[in-house]
Amino acid sequence: MGFEEMWADLLPLGRDAATGGYRRFAWTPPELECRAWFADEARRRGLDVEHDANGNMIAWWRPEGARGPAVLTGSHLDSVPGGGAFDGPLGVVSAFAAIDLLRDRGVRPRRPVGVAAFAEEEGARFGVACLGSRLLTGTIDPARARALTDADGRTFADVLHHAGLDPEAIGPDDGLLDRVGCFVELHVEQGRALAGPVGVASAIVPHGRWRFDFAGEGNHAGTTGLADRRDPMLPFAGMVLAAREAAERNGTVATVGKVRVTPNGVNAIASAVTGWLDARGPDDAAVRRTVADVDAAARAAARPHGVAVELAEESYTGIVGFDLDLRDRLARTLGGVPVLPTGAGHDAGILSARVPTAMLFVRNPTGVSHAPAEHADTADCLAGVAALAAVLDDLTAG
Amino acid sequence: MGFEEMWADLLPLGRDAATGGYRRFAWTPPELECRAWFADEARRRGLDVEHDANGNMIAWWRPEGARGPAVLTGSHLDSVPGGGAFDGPLGVVSAFAAIDLLRDRGVRPRRPVGVAAFAEEEGARFGVACLGSRLLTGTIDPARARALTDADGRTFADVLHHAGLDPEAIGPDDGLLDRVGCFVELHVEQGRALAGPVGVASAIVPHGRWRFDFAGEGNHAGTTGLADRRDPMLPFAGMVLAAREAAERNGTVATVGKVRVTPNGVNAIASAVTGWLDARGPDDAAVRRTVADVDAAARAAARPHGVAVELAEESYTGIVGFDLDLRDRLARTLGGVPVLPTGAGHDAGILSARVPTAMLFVRNPTGVSHAPAEHADTADCLAGVAALAAVLDDLTAG
Repeated sequence: MGFEEMWADLLPLGRDAATGGYRRFAWTPPELECRAWFADEARRRGLDVEHDANGNMIAWWRPEGARGPAVLTGSHLDSVPGGGAFDGPLGVVSAFAAIDLLRDRGVRPRRPVGVAAFAEEEGARFGVACLGSRLLTGTIDPARARALTDADGRTFADVLHHAGLDPEAIGPDDGLLDRVGCFVELHVEQGRALAGPVGVASAIVPHGRWRFDFAGEGNHAGTTGLADRRDPMLPFAGMVLAAREAAERNGTVATVGKVRVTPNGVNAIASAVTGWLDARGPDDAAVRRTVADVDAAARAAARPHGVAVELAEESYTGIVGFDLDLRDRLARTLGGVPVLPTGAGHDAGILSARVPTAMLFVRNPTGVSHAPAEHADTADCLAGVAALAAVLDDLTAG
Repeated sequence: MGFEEMWADLLPLGRDAATGGYRRFAWTPPELECRAWFADEARRRGLDVEHDANGNMIAWWRPEGARGPAVLTGSHLDSVPGGGAFDGPLGVVSAFAAIDLLRDRGVRPRRPVGVAAFAEEEGARFGVACLGSRLLTGTIDPARARALTDADGRTFADVLHHAGLDPEAIGPDDGLLDRVGCFVELHVEQGRALAGPVGVASAIVPHGRWRFDFAGEGNHAGTTGLADRRDPMLPFAGMVLAAREAAERNGTVATVGKVRVTPNGVNAIASAVTGWLDARGPDDAAVRRTVADVDAAARAAARPHGVAVELAEESYTGIVGFDLDLRDRLARTLGGVPVLPTGAGHDAGILSARVPTAMLFVRNPTGVSHAPAEHADTADCLAGVAALAAVLDDLTAG
């Protein structure tokens, strides 16, 4: 199965025919199909699939004579709601294709190569991005993770249990990490910053997500006078506009892309509105100032309406500068490709706290991501496979 | 079964144990249980249940010797999402209880009495309030009604078909209306305007619902610069704030209580946001000005962001002045109870276009409606039953 055949097999899974967007939430049927596809591709190549305790999968290529710390590659298979086809799967498909390329050339790596599919990278189901890699590396408390709930109120522990995993066994796995010498994640670029087909990441900028809960009083939209209202929708709207202003002021980006309204009826004043803020910027201080500005504005907007505001930080990751030696080695191997930062979080950012980590980006001509228009040309994808193969060849040679 | 026993039977149906709110959407299991309860109560009293072609139910009391146009009473059994227990069911339960009271007293009405349960009064499932009474009276095109869809995309025609009704048979029913001499709906008051336990309605103020669709471009929340965004959440927020300002300026009320965000992901700029506007006011001009002001503000807010706006009127009802003779007759029968207008729409407002119609209100001490805190004291409910019995006695005597 070449790159294009694998790609064609994955393409229909979890795709909305009307919008072309993907919905591959962790452990839902379409994502389970992606996991089955992963296991099939591993089996087809004679790779051993390791299921770790945290829901991550790794397909191991252990050629005769390979020993010592492995080179890990891969990415994730889950998606945001209405996401694109490339974010995640491109890294996994390219990893299998790169192994095929090395084998076709008769390369015999001196180290094992692992292809990872990390669980719940987008956080679309349980609200915490990179949940699988966070658990693996110990950057989220397992008890907190177990208690996370999806939109239907099901806990992460319950979903793990139904997937055949032991919720009590989740958490940091030093045994696995000790077997990994370095991690290289290939990913579709999510802006329009790449001129050529392939680039190397310098850093992931600081980013996080915050939840604003506005609590008012549900009431009848027709019979409740303006002065008698405690309408949480009004300060929510103020918070949305404040986020844009705070981002402009602080040189960051800030987005309110998810809202939950209770009860969400046309003729009912809402009793509660929850809005999620995603904020990212060049440094910690700028992001923190952005969130503080939005918080102050939300509270100021809520006060005259008698609405209560609560702010909760759901996740935050400071700047992740990738391993300098590894980054330079990739750039050298690939002969002068651009080195660029990214505003997107990745499992690579989480792994980098424990093992030398690098990223390769493949050009995205639309600059769109997390939406159906996300794209990479096949020629660029194949250039990405070739680049990843060259990098794996180099890293496993020594 | 007295009032309190009937009330206790209905109370658990469709109730959310956590919030105490009701979710009785038309033809969903809890609402079907309410319909079964209705049929049981009718049977228990020897009343014939008529199922009209539009999903409405009427339990007929036709005492020996009763002839001529009937007196219709009743209300509805469906609820808004997270609604209160009283809005709708109070009028139906009170109607059965009033019949019991008349029978206990040995009253022999000279006209038939009907207890109606109108379908989809709240419009919570298909978006058009008073759908059952609108179809009955011909104030909505049957073809338009058939094509209405619920949140899962199911059409009204499909739901009717599964409920055993013929979607092609819906529409105005003059035969039924010709059998009705007048309609009296008892309803919980939805503000705090009533000092005593019972009042009589003067009018329903003009009210309607409008849908604002904001279409932007979905994209990644981290990698898309502020200048490259077409974020529909921003003009939506502007529209929410504009609705409040327009209501203050025009002496109306305006509410955005329902929102739909696509794809609704934390780390994705929305591709589309739909917000519903509910607006009501003392006269048509004030309501129309309010909507025009909100529309202008939404478009002005959308333009700089490259977001498209579409406005659709989902329903509108001009001022409904109830029949003056009937209103005065009720007030006389009840001996000087207050006469007051309401900002809430009702099936009575729709019926009034075809038959003399009046409304009785029962005091709501919280002033809250369409929310779990909606309330009426049992003593006031029983006063409502007594008042309705007196009115039915008077209207069926002649």
